[in-house]
Amino acid sequence: MDVLSEEKPESSIAGVMAELGARARNGANVLANADSNVKTEALKAMAAALRARQGEILEANEKDMAAARKNGRPEAFLDRLKLTGERIEAMAAGLEAIAGLDDPVGDVISSWERPNGLVISRVRTPLGVIGIIYESRPNVTADAGGLCLKSGNAVILRAGSESQHSAHAIHACLVEGLNAAGLPEAAIQLVPTTDRAAVGEMLKGLNGTLDVIIPRGGKSLVERVQKDARVPVFAHLEGICHVYVHQGADLAMATEIAVNAKMRRTGICGAAETLLVDRAFADTHLKPLVTALLEADCEVRGDKETQAADPRVKPAGEEDWGTEYLDAVISVKVVDGADAAIAHIARYGSAHTDAIVTDDQSVAEAFLGRVDSAIVLHNASTQFADGGEFGMGAEIGIATGKMHARGPVGVEQLTSFKYVVRGHGQTRPL
Amino acid sequence: MDVLSEEKPESSIAGVMAELGARARNGANVLANADSNVKTEALKAMAAALRARQGEILEANEKDMAAARKNGRPEAFLDRLKLTGERIEAMAAGLEAIAGLDDPVGDVISSWERPNGLVISRVRTPLGVIGIIYESRPNVTADAGGLCLKSGNAVILRAGSESQHSAHAIHACLVEGLNAAGLPEAAIQLVPTTDRAAVGEMLKGLNGTLDVIIPRGGKSLVERVQKDARVPVFAHLEGICHVYVHQGADLAMATEIAVNAKMRRTGICGAAETLLVDRAFADTHLKPLVTALLEADCEVRGDKETQAADPRVKPAGEEDWGTEYLDAVISVKVVDGADAAIAHIARYGSAHTDAIVTDDQSVAEAFLGRVDSAIVLHNASTQFADGGEFGMGAEIGIATGKMHARGPVGVEQLTSFKYVVRGHGQTRPL
Repeated sequence: MDVLSEEKPESSIAGVMAELGARARNGANVLANADSNVKTEALKAMAAALRARQGEILEANEKDMAAARKNGRPEAFLDRLKLTGERIEAMAAGLEAIAGLDDPVGDVISSWERPNGLVISRVRTPLGVIGIIYESRPNVTADAGGLCLKSGNAVILRAGSESQHSAHAIHACLVEGLNAAGLPEAAIQLVPTTDRAAVGEMLKGLNGTLDVIIPRGGKSLVERVQKDARVPVFAHLEGICHVYVHQGADLAMATEIAVNAKMRRTGICGAAETLLVDRAFADTHLKPLVTALLEADCEVRGDKETQAADPRVKPAGEEDWGTEYLDAVISVKVVDGADAAIAHIARYGSAHTDAIVTDDQSVAEAFLGRVDSAIVLHNASTQFADGGEFGMGAEIGIATGKMHARGPVGVEQLTSFKYVVRGHGQTRPL
Repeated sequence: MDVLSEEKPESSIAGVMAELGARARNGANVLANADSNVKTEALKAMAAALRARQGEILEANEKDMAAARKNGRPEAFLDRLKLTGERIEAMAAGLEAIAGLDDPVGDVISSWERPNGLVISRVRTPLGVIGIIYESRPNVTADAGGLCLKSGNAVILRAGSESQHSAHAIHACLVEGLNAAGLPEAAIQLVPTTDRAAVGEMLKGLNGTLDVIIPRGGKSLVERVQKDARVPVFAHLEGICHVYVHQGADLAMATEIAVNAKMRRTGICGAAETLLVDRAFADTHLKPLVTALLEADCEVRGDKETQAADPRVKPAGEEDWGTEYLDAVISVKVVDGADAAIAHIARYGSAHTDAIVTDDQSVAEAFLGRVDSAIVLHNASTQFADGGEFGMGAEIGIATGKMHARGPVGVEQLTSFKYVVRGHGQTRPL
């Protein structure tokens, strides 16, 4: 059966999506009370199915790849879309890693006794139904499905139209795992149509069914979701991350951190986009910092002072300070101390991840306290902005909102909580 | 100066509100880093100002009362609006109680070290700017202002048009307290116009300024805010709370809890609206439960079985199961065991607060686990649904959403967090 390219009238899409939502809600009710061992069994069976059905998945992926090549998609797109035996193995291992995480559901976050003997506990619960809207990376299907299952949530996955065959093949393995453990197939559903109206329905919340939407993809997708969603969204629009080298910094450490923050991987959200250097020691320190970046094959765009430091530096315009290059390009600016650095980050940053390099503890603490970003670092690379590096296990992304989930979104962030109160007949006095 | 009744063109309202928002954002930046002692000083000075200016406040309140009487407002409305020396003292004492709470800002929620030596801390931060939209109760001005200040948030208060004089007089005392402590007046602003367009502007978020909106008032206000707000909302629409008396219940305890849950105060959100009684022991237990409620002057509307238990029981219709009476009325239904009770609550409840009475621990745990409400209780009255009773100190309301704040919203729930990472030069390996 191949219904993937079939376009349906919008009213019919609304019906299909409403039905998906109703099934998800039922699935969520079962999952919320599912035993940890059963969820673990399902995750392991999913991993086994991915390995067993590798040939099928590669075949499906080749269909997507062929279409993408025919459509003249750029190399970076093809690389994101492409599956290999190794990448499928990584997905399977990822599911096993999720299986190995602690189950957050039922976790007692805190508990206290009141003078009247009531015992109040704050207990972790699933959120309910999560919608994931993503683009070409096929591994999101497995990662998101696994994380939502672990956290007791039903999930509705909407894969990009160009990765549909791959997503369906991977989804079939997840369903096989659910079946093996006796969990409802409604726990992990894949939107069966590529019609864009399906996304619109999800953004409206499927009649109050969706508790949260998580977009995974480029800026235009996230922007649309943040603008139109009528339900909460966990996301970041962009990661305009800064490394601020304070005059109290060790030059060797600052250089290593700046080069790593920018160049380890240039395409991730935690990559640095702007380097801020204190004027007080720019005379001696600016040139070596810039040289190190240039020698690491990074294009440097700087203000006047930075341009004077090396002839290879290109001029930075106003728009550079607010640009997420996601490439081997960095903007460099000389600032008048920590206050100016913090003000620059407040104005141009995206509240994602920002770092200070300094040996001055009090300046470091002021920076960590005053920079209003999800992650602030002292003497470490911004590339540590990652759930795995934080020790959370797998993550589904990084959120910059201040509500509920902020920073890496792992299984714990996919939960809510309730208050459980245990008494022995207490009534409330007037 | 009395600008309260002045209507302005809508474009001008938008301008006024945008300016209020911009000032609030600046105020929030100062407050986020304000010293705990300074905030405490401000709260105490506010309390002192309320006491010192009692005459002024009572005079302003009398203006509101006179207008409300002239408009033929019902007695319950007048009682909510009315201030007395005692009620002003309660407001002042409330601010002092808030002053005495622990400051949540900067609190290290958790902290751990990674194998590479990075120390990661999850640190509480203010949310930013909070909008409060309320109706006639003048004390909300002081309570909300105090809670937001304590949690380091700037607040924009929008009082109901019929309590404007009272709200302005109380707000003047809060401003006096801010001034005394050297904190910016922008920390607590009162919308200076009664034009309803101001509410519309707040629901749109004031150009991204508002981080959360908290409506305090009746169902129609909350409904409008939940429907139209483009920013997160902490609220509950209604409290359709249940007491389920399981066959394993002690009858005396069940009776006391049922009567207290319904009758202690009938107008609060934690008041019970429906009593569910197990069929297995309805023969012996239904009649005494119903009699106790009737004798406490509660109207009882019941299903067939309940009507048969006492001739004074009126018939309950389908709409009764989903009605928040907020009055001395209760609906009573006989159910076939815990599964049926849980299903009834899932269908008709409002995910606020629900209780089970039973001596059977395993049934109690199943109920506590499976009922998806913000607060679930075992052998205790639903009227304990209150931040003060939970030991949180003052609260600004009860939230039934699953995001961020759920249950009583106290100072801690008015905060977010960030990750602070301390290193000594760590870069991320490939």
